[in-house]
Amino acid sequence: MRIAGLQHAGTPGDVDANLAVLDAAAARAAAAGCRLLVTPEMFLTGYDIGARVKHLAREPLEERTAEVAARHGLALAVGLPQPAESGVGVTNSVLLLDDRGRRVVRYDKTHLFGDLDRAMFVPGRIPVVTAELEGIRLGFLVCYDVEFPETVRAAALAGADLVVVPTAQMEPFAFVAEHLIRVRAWENQVYVAYVNHSGSEGDLRYVGRSSVCAPSGEVLAVADADGEALLVADVDAEVVRTARRENPYLDDLRPEFRPGSRSAADPGVPPAPGTGKL
Amino acid sequence: MRIAGLQHAGTPGDVDANLAVLDAAAARAAAAGCRLLVTPEMFLTGYDIGARVKHLAREPLEERTAEVAARHGLALAVGLPQPAESGVGVTNSVLLLDDRGRRVVRYDKTHLFGDLDRAMFVPGRIPVVTAELEGIRLGFLVCYDVEFPETVRAAALAGADLVVVPTAQMEPFAFVAEHLIRVRAWENQVYVAYVNHSGSEGDLRYVGRSSVCAPSGEVLAVADADGEALLVADVDAEVVRTARRENPYLDDLRPEFRPGSRSAADPGVPPAPGTGKL
Repeated sequence: MRIAGLQHAGTPGDVDANLAVLDAAAARAAAAGCRLLVTPEMFLTGYDIGARVKHLAREPLEERTAEVAARHGLALAVGLPQPAESGVGVTNSVLLLDDRGRRVVRYDKTHLFGDLDRAMFVPGRIPVVTAELEGIRLGFLVCYDVEFPETVRAAALAGADLVVVPTAQMEPFAFVAEHLIRVRAWENQVYVAYVNHSGSEGDLRYVGRSSVCAPSGEVLAVADADGEALLVADVDAEVVRTARRENPYLDDLRPEFRPGSRSAADPGVPPAPGTGKL
Repeated sequence: MRIAGLQHAGTPGDVDANLAVLDAAAARAAAAGCRLLVTPEMFLTGYDIGARVKHLAREPLEERTAEVAARHGLALAVGLPQPAESGVGVTNSVLLLDDRGRRVVRYDKTHLFGDLDRAMFVPGRIPVVTAELEGIRLGFLVCYDVEFPETVRAAALAGADLVVVPTAQMEPFAFVAEHLIRVRAWENQVYVAYVNHSGSEGDLRYVGRSSVCAPSGEVLAVADADGEALLVADVDAEVVRTARRENPYLDDLRPEFRPGSRSAADPGVPPAPGTGKL
C-alpha cells in the first residue's frame, strides 16, 4: 500500500483553509497512487488555539473530511479535536476514514504533553487502537505518545504493521524527529509515519522533519525542517514479517517485560531490582 | 564521577593477554581521574569461544580482576563468563568490583542472542540489577538486553543514573550502536555506557562505535568502528535529575504501561486493543 504524509503549517483556527489544503494534498496523493494520506496533529483546526478548541471540536469536522476522502477515493488519517466520549471536555484525536469517507476508527491521544495539552484536552482512555486497511494493520498514536517506547511496543504486539503518528513537534525537541522515530521502527519492526507541522504557531516553532521509516530503521522519506512536503512511501506487510524473522525482538522479549505480565519467578512484579552482593 | 570505557579486540581464549590489556587500560583510566572502567562483553575470555567457555568460567577470573582493581584503586565493570547460580551451565555476566577489588554486584545477561548465545549460556534470572558507586546508581545490561526498551526503562524506574552495557555487537547491527543507544539515554534520561569489541572473532566482525551518551541524548564520547579506544566521560546525578524535570517521561508514562501494572479500567491487561468502529 502506498501512503502519503502531508507536512504543512496550516492556518490556526481556519478550518476552511485547512480543508482546502487537505483537499489539494489528497488530489496529489491519489494521483501518485496512494491509498492513505496522513496529516499532522490537530491539522484541521490548528493545534495551539487555546479555548477555541472547545468550539471547533463541535463543528462537523468529520463530515467535511469524509467529503474529501470520498471525492478522491483515498483513506485519510486526520488530526482534529473531538468531543470526549464521556461528554466532558475535548480529546486530541486522529480519525481514520476509508476511501468512501466512512469512519474506520478513532484514537484519542493518551499521553498529554505539558501544560499546553492539559489546558485544552482530556486524555484518551484506550492506549492501543488498531484497524486494518488494504491488508495492512495500522496502529495510531499522537505526538508525545510515540516518545514512550511502551506505546509502539503495544501496537506492534497488537499486530500493527504501520504506526501512524500525526504530530506537532516543536523546538527544542528535534531529537525525536531526527533520532527516535527510526529507532521505534527498528525495535518493533514496524513502519512509522511521523507527520509534523512546519512553520510557527503562537510561541511554538515546529521542527518539521516528518518521516516514514521502515521496519529496518531505514528512512524511506523525510521532509526538511521547514516548509511543506508531501511524503510518499510504500508499506508492505511481507517486509514486516521478514524483518521480524531477521530481528526477533517481539519473540525474544522476556515474559517479565510483556505488558501486564507477572513474573513467574517473582509475582511481586515489576521484576525485583537485584541489589548489593549476590 | 568520571568513567572510562575500553573498546578493544582482545584475544579470544587468552585470559592472561586480556588481563594484561585490562591492567594497562586501568592504569590509563586511573591516571585520567576515572573511578570506573567498563570492558566489552566477555572481554576476559573472548566471546565467540564455543565450548571453552565452560572451562574458562571456572578459572579464578574474579580474583585476578580484583587484583587489577585494587592495584589501580579503580572500580571495574568486567564482562566474563560465570558458573550459573543454579549450578547448571554458564552465564554471560558482568561483575562490578569496587576500587579495592571487592564484588559489589553481578548481573547475568537475561536476553540471549540467537544460536550463538544459546549454545554457550543460560539466561540470567534477574532482569533489573542496580548498585551504587560514588553516589551514582548504576544499572547493568549486556549487549542484546539494551536493544529492548523495557530493560533500560526498568533500570531507570529502579533509580539508575547510568546504565553500563558491555557488548559484543557485530555486523550487520551497527544501527544499534549508531542510533539506538542515544535514544535509550534520551527516553529515560539516563547515561548509557555502551562498550564494544573491535576487530574480528571467528566469523564475527564487530562494529566498534562504543559510546557514552548523556541523559539529553548527546553523545559525550564515541569510538571509531575499528581499533582500540579508551573513552572518558563525566557522569553527574544532578544532570539526570535536571533532565528528568525538563523531559518528564518517567512521570508522564501512563500507569497501564508501567512494568507489571494492571489497568484499572481493564484488569485483563495488556491494554485492550481498540479496534473497529467506536
